[in-house]
Amino acid sequence: MCRRRTTKGWSSFTTVSSSNMADPWQNAMDHAVAVARKAGEVVCDALRGDRAVMTKSSVVDLVTQTDQKVEQLIIQSVKEKFPTHRFIGEESVAAGEPCVLSDSPTWIIDPIDGTTNFVHAFPFVAISIGFAINKQVEFGVVFSCVEDKMFTARRGKGAFCNGEPLQVSRQEAVEQAMVATEFGSDRDADVVDKIFQSLRNILCLPVHGVRGAGSAAINMCLVASGCVEAYYEIGIHVWDVAAASLIVSEAGGVLMDVDGGDVDLMSRRIIAANSKTITERLVKAIVPFSLPRDDATPPKKS
Amino acid sequence: MCRRRTTKGWSSFTTVSSSNMADPWQNAMDHAVAVARKAGEVVCDALRGDRAVMTKSSVVDLVTQTDQKVEQLIIQSVKEKFPTHRFIGEESVAAGEPCVLSDSPTWIIDPIDGTTNFVHAFPFVAISIGFAINKQVEFGVVFSCVEDKMFTARRGKGAFCNGEPLQVSRQEAVEQAMVATEFGSDRDADVVDKIFQSLRNILCLPVHGVRGAGSAAINMCLVASGCVEAYYEIGIHVWDVAAASLIVSEAGGVLMDVDGGDVDLMSRRIIAANSKTITERLVKAIVPFSLPRDDATPPKKS
Repeated sequence: MCRRRTTKGWSSFTTVSSSNMADPWQNAMDHAVAVARKAGEVVCDALRGDRAVMTKSSVVDLVTQTDQKVEQLIIQSVKEKFPTHRFIGEESVAAGEPCVLSDSPTWIIDPIDGTTNFVHAFPFVAISIGFAINKQVEFGVVFSCVEDKMFTARRGKGAFCNGEPLQVSRQEAVEQAMVATEFGSDRDADVVDKIFQSLRNILCLPVHGVRGAGSAAINMCLVASGCVEAYYEIGIHVWDVAAASLIVSEAGGVLMDVDGGDVDLMSRRIIAANSKTITERLVKAIVPFSLPRDDATPPKKS
Repeated sequence: MCRRRTTKGWSSFTTVSSSNMADPWQNAMDHAVAVARKAGEVVCDALRGDRAVMTKSSVVDLVTQTDQKVEQLIIQSVKEKFPTHRFIGEESVAAGEPCVLSDSPTWIIDPIDGTTNFVHAFPFVAISIGFAINKQVEFGVVFSCVEDKMFTARRGKGAFCNGEPLQVSRQEAVEQAMVATEFGSDRDADVVDKIFQSLRNILCLPVHGVRGAGSAAINMCLVASGCVEAYYEIGIHVWDVAAASLIVSEAGGVLMDVDGGDVDLMSRRIIAANSKTITERLVKAIVPFSLPRDDATPPKKS
C-alpha cells in the first residue's frame, strides 16, 4: 500500500541492488539490504515461538534475547565485509559501548525497532540500518518484516518500498492530516503530562486522526509512503530514526526538531512530515522538552 | 501473525466453508464470507485510486462513496438470497433508516470499518458483517482486506483467522498487557477530557503500551488473536462491534460495559479483553460517560 512517485525522474533507480560503479557505497547498501532480510527471517521465526522479556530503563522498556542476537548477527556480518567501519547499535550501547557519530563510516543499527510489538506479536516490527559518513546519512534500510516491506533510500537517489518509488502525501491542510506519534516507555508524570498536552493540542487542531505503529522507523516509513502526513516524538534514539530519516527526506519529506530548529539525530526529538506547512503547524502544537542526548551518555566501564 | 489455539477441540472447525447440515445458518455465514471478500476487492481497488471525502457528524467523521457503494453491494447481495432478513447498515442509518435490533434475522454491516484509514491508505481497513437472531449474534465476519485476513466466528464453534483457530492472550498481569483504544471523531472538549483521563490512567497502571489500529473491528480481532490483551472505546456503534464481539468471545475473551456491567451493543461503549482480571482493572481506570444510544436515534423522514 505504498504511494508511488509517478514522475519519470526515478526510473533509473527502481532497484537498489543494481550495481553502480559511480557509487562507492552501493556494495555496503546491498549488504545492508541482504543482512536486514536475513535478520527479518530470524525475527519472524522468533515471533512464532516464546519470547522471554527483560527490562531496561523502566518496567515497560523491553528487550529480548532476539534483539541482542539480531544485533550481533548484523554487526558480525558487516565487520567481516567492512572491518574498519564503526557501529552504533541499540543493544551495544545498552551494554556500555559508546554512542558517538564520528566522520568515519558508521553503521547505526536497531535490530528490532518495535520491541514491545515484537513481544506481543503486534504486526509492526522493523530492522533498521542506517549508514553515515561525515555525520551524514548516506543510505537507510528499514525492513518491516511481518509486512515484508523493504524500505530503502540512498542520498540523492530517492526512496523505495520493495523497489517501488515512494512519495510523501501532498496534503498541506493540517485539518485533513493523519499524524503518527507514540507514548514511549517513560512513565514519569511530568513527561507524560507534556506528551498528553502535545497530543491533545494536535488532535484538536483538529486532525483526521492520530495513529502509532509502535515503531519509530515504521511510523517514518508511513510518512514516506504518504499514509500519514507527519510523525513526531520526543524520546526516540538515533538508531530508531537514522535510516528512516533519509527515507523520509528522499521521498520528498521534511525533517525538523520539535522546536522548529534543525533536526539533530542525537537529540532524542524529531518531526518527520510531508511538508514545511504541516511541520510548522505541529511545532506550534508540541510542548517541547529535553532528554539526555544519545551522545552525552558516558560509556560504561567494562 | 494470528495466535493459534493448540488444543485439539477445534479440529473439526478449521474451515468456515465446510457444509454443516445441522446448522441452519451455515449458508448465511458462507454467504457473508463470500460477500465480505468481494467487498474487500472493491475496497482494495478503491485504495489504488482517488478517494473523495465527505463528512458526517463532525469535520473528522468521514465517509466516502466507496462506503456507500460497498454497503449497497452487501445488502443487495444478501437481499437476493435472504429476502425476509433485516439490516442495520452504517450508511443506511446515516441516510435515515432505523437502527433497531428485533428478534428477526438481522445483518449488521459496516462496509468500511476504518474509513479514516481508508482515506489515508493506512493499512487497517475492514468489512464487518454480523448476523443476529433474537438479539444475539449468531456469526461474525471481519475481513481485514489490506492484510488479507478473514476473521470468522460462529456461536459455540470458535473463532478463526483464515481458517486457523484463534485464542486470546493468557497474560493476566495488566502491567505486562498491551491495550488498544481510539481517540474517535468527537472533538468536544468534555469528551476529549474524559478520553484523555482514561488513557492516562491506563498508560500509567503501567501497561506495556497503548496502540490503536484505527478500526474497532480490527482492534477486537487483535484481542482475539492475542496481540493485545484488551480493547476499550466509548463512541463506537453497533455495526463496528457486532461481528467482532462474537470473534472475541469465541476466542475465549470477555466482553463488558466500561462501567463493569453487561455489554450492550447499542450503548456505544465496550471493553473486549482476554480475561475478567484485565477487564476489571480497566473498568477501574476508565472514566465512563454516555452518548445517545444507537437505537435511540429516530429515523429521519424521507
